[in-house]
Parts: sequence; C-alpha cells; structure tokens
Amino acid sequence: MTFIDMLGAAERQNHSMLCVGLDPEPARFPGRLAGDASKIYDFCAAIVDATADLVIAFKPQIAYFAAHRAEDQLERLMAHMRRVAPQVPVILDAKRGDIGSTAEQYAIEAFERYGADAVTLSPFMGFDSVAPYLKYHGKGSFLLCRTSNPGGDDLQNQRLASVDGQPLLYEHIARLAQGPWNLNGQLGLVVGATYPAEIERVRAVAPTLPLLIPGVGAQGGDAAATVRAGWRPGAPIIVNSSRAIIYASSGDDFADAARREALRTRDVLQAARADSLRVATP
Amino acid sequence: MTFIDMLGAAERQNHSMLCVGLDPEPARFPGRLAGDASKIYDFCAAIVDATADLVIAFKPQIAYFAAHRAEDQLERLMAHMRRVAPQVPVILDAKRGDIGSTAEQYAIEAFERYGADAVTLSPFMGFDSVAPYLKYHGKGSFLLCRTSNPGGDDLQNQRLASVDGQPLLYEHIARLAQGPWNLNGQLGLVVGATYPAEIERVRAVAPTLPLLIPGVGAQGGDAAATVRAGWRPGAPIIVNSSRAIIYASSGDDFADAARREALRTRDVLQAARADSLRVATP
Repeated sequence: MTFIDMLGAAERQNHSMLCVGLDPEPARFPGRLAGDASKIYDFCAAIVDATADLVIAFKPQIAYFAAHRAEDQLERLMAHMRRVAPQVPVILDAKRGDIGSTAEQYAIEAFERYGADAVTLSPFMGFDSVAPYLKYHGKGSFLLCRTSNPGGDDLQNQRLASVDGQPLLYEHIARLAQGPWNLNGQLGLVVGATYPAEIERVRAVAPTLPLLIPGVGAQGGDAAATVRAGWRPGAPIIVNSSRAIIYASSGDDFADAARREALRTRDVLQAARADSLRVATP
Repeated sequence: MTFIDMLGAAERQNHSMLCVGLDPEPARFPGRLAGDASKIYDFCAAIVDATADLVIAFKPQIAYFAAHRAEDQLERLMAHMRRVAPQVPVILDAKRGDIGSTAEQYAIEAFERYGADAVTLSPFMGFDSVAPYLKYHGKGSFLLCRTSNPGGDDLQNQRLASVDGQPLLYEHIARLAQGPWNLNGQLGLVVGATYPAEIERVRAVAPTLPLLIPGVGAQGGDAAATVRAGWRPGAPIIVNSSRAIIYASSGDDFADAARREALRTRDVLQAARADSLRVATP
C-alpha cells in the first residue's frame, strides 16, 4: 500500500483531513510530566492514543527529539503508532535537504530506522536532493513549497525571469513536483495556511498532489478558508495542527483535552469540505 | 573566541585551508573495521588524531550518524575533537532549515548537545529560519548558496526578476548573508568547488564571508583553481575533502594514508595561495 493509498484510506476511515503534529517540548508538558524530557514518549503516545481515530496522519517533528537526545523515544513512538494506529500514515517532519550519498543516509534514517511513511524535504539543492527518497517505492515525500513564516517571502516569493511564464519560485517548485520530479507518484507539497490565495495558486499548478498545510490552530490560519482553497475531490489536503491540540490543557487531562480539540478541528474541516462540495455541485 | 576567530587561529597554526569531512560509511570502512557501525567513533577518532595538525576545521556530516543510530558516537566524537584538537573548529554539517521554535530545537541540537562551533543551514525558508542560530554569540552558520551537484541549477541558478540588478538566486543569498542577515557577524556560505567562476562570483558579492567549499578531491573540483577563485587576504576559505582523505586506504593503515592525503591536499592549497599572493602583489 503506497503512502497516497494510506492517506486515502485514513481519510475515509476517520472522516478526517486533520494531521496532529507531535512537537514535544518538555517545558510545555502538562501536569505531572512538566519539564521531564524522559517523558517525551509517554506524552506523545498519550496524544496518539487519544486521537488515532480522528486523524488522516501524524507528523512527529524530529528536531524536538534531537534537541533532547530522544532518538530512542522517537523510535519507540514510531513503533507505538504502527501498533495502535496501523491505518494512519506517519509523516516524519525533518525538512532534510542534501545530495547523493548523504541524502541516501537521511532516507535510511527516515524510512528504515524510523519506518516513516513519508518525510518532508527541502528542494533547495534541486532534483538530485529529492531522487534518493523516490527510490523507496510507495514512500511519500513532501517538498517545501510556500511557507507562511515572515521570511517565507525572502526566496520563495521571488519571480523567476528565465522560466516560461515567469512563475514565482514556489509556483516553479509546485510545477516540478506535479510533473517531471514525481517519479514514484508519491510527491506532495508543504504550503502554509496563512494565505489561502497562495494555497489556491499551488492547487492550480499542482492539481493532484497532496498538500501538507501547517499553520492552522496555534499558528492562526483559517481552517475553512484553507479547505476551500486547497481541497478538491481526489486531491487531498493534510491540515496540520500541533500546539493547539497537544497543549490544549496544561493539566493531567491533556489527552482528553487534545481529543476534544482534535475532534473540533476535524469537524470544522469536514464541514468546510461539505460546503466546498455544495458550491462545486449546485 | 568566536568561530571566525577560531578559523583564523587554526589557519595560522596549521598553515591550512583544508577541512576534513567526516562522512563515516561502515560499508567503506577499512581493514578490521569493515562493515561495523559500532566502530564509527573509532574510525572517525583515528582520522581526527592523524590530521588534527593539518586542518582548519573538521566537518562531521550528521546524516551518516543518524542512519546508523549513532548519535551517541557523534557525541563522543565531538568530545574527542574538543579534547585532542581544541584549536580546530568543528562545523556540524546538518543543512537544517526550519523556523521558530523548531529552528531553536535544531540550534540546541547543534550548539548545546553536540557543542559544534558552526553549523550548515538551508536558507530556503528565509531569514527567520536563520535567526535562531544567530542568537548564539560567536557560533558560525554556513548558508547553502551555490551547490555544484547536477540539480544545483534547478533553483539556485534562477535569475530573479524583481530584485535590483536581477541577480541569480545564489547571488541574492550571498548578498543577504554579507549584509542584512549577518547579525552576529558569523555567517558564511557553502559554495561548491566544481565551477571556480561561480566561487569568484560569490566572492565578489560577499567579499569577507568565510566560504565552505566542498567538492575538492573525490568530488573532482580543482584545488588550485578553487583557491584562486575564493581566497583573499582576510576572507577565508574552508576547502572540504571527505572521501579522498578518509578512505585513502582500504587497509589498516587508513589513518596514515589519510594523513598523507591530507598533507598533500593541504600543501596544494597552500601553494595555490602563495601563487595568488604573488599575482596580487607583483
């Protein structure tokens, strides 16, 4: 089963386009876990258990594990997710970007060591920084395309003088990912939620690719506008929310609170999708 | 002592612009270490011991450690380098590229967990993906600028229509790093060795930044042309060679062979520098 197939199956089974991002910061841990980096696994596993039937994917962010010497806890978490939620694909958010044998090492890290179903990548070094991941049949790769942080404009929003139609850099990346780069049919794009018009633009250039959309929830993107801009039948979106869900409560009820917030966000997204369908088929 | 100060001191003490890249692949390990991932530390430490008086820097590539669950060996290696070669700065080659609190986690990983003196970064997400590293006073950050892999052209070599003078993307990055982005005065650039004309172009736009130049040796760049293109008095270059040095012998004499190859490469670089000086001051 390929990553794209897994996405579709999880979306149908859980009626969800919501991805829960696992960004464990011990300093923000609730209740009895507060400040304890040895509890990263326990914290994340509790969130997973509380939300596994509500999500299209989980997205652990590897930086939070690396900062705390917690690679072993990430390994245990990946195994836990495969065990309790085998139907939910796991996207390892690593934003790796390197070439040749170094990229091969990172692909081993993501797909073999951690057993991720997909990984996030930076396209800055070009196609041969993506190719080593595409050799893994059925594994997904999301390329950074348009990020909605303040500095996202610095490079991504530059207009390219020598490419047909003078696209913006992020539009050029979307075009490459939809077309010549998509050798294993498992490419997707990372597009921030802050500017729905840009999601719509990416969707126009990349009509079938899965879009991983962070920035809903704590980062402020409007969930319904995101769905209208990016979702199309047969063109999935994976709308990520991390902090608004995993830190929904600072007490020992954090897992229940995470479930409530995930349910609420999922339902907002599903309602927006139903609206989009009504508009599309009057 | 800042990273730039360390670079200058190591360059003078070791009469060297050579950086030895530590890319440990157990499958390529020589002699009695062959194939043994538990010997990554032993292999790298032997290379360090054999070359510490010949280099301006060491550059461990973190992907090779991550692929083999060898973060603990990287920690031990970093401690070993600080102990036996405290005068040699260590550049952690990680090419991280993320924003906000995630970038802060990666900065903790590089500078606190591993104690690196500098790190390599991707500028794709813009200034706020670089800023968290600049808060570490005296720590260096090398931004990917122009890489000489085949796909390096895909994005880096695009001409920007809306920036004054219509620079290429990599020239724009060099300009940002030389100017507005260089808040702690410790930025550098990564520029591949394959095309000396491009090194020269980067040097023209960024007249004082340290340039980290991979691609000499196994990757085929011409050492002397690299020096002529990039080195200027007061504007250091760090010329990296990995495989040509660390895999110079497939026998148990690998450390001696690495030393011979490092010495040879260092001397080629120093001779080219002497030539450059002669040309510059006739």
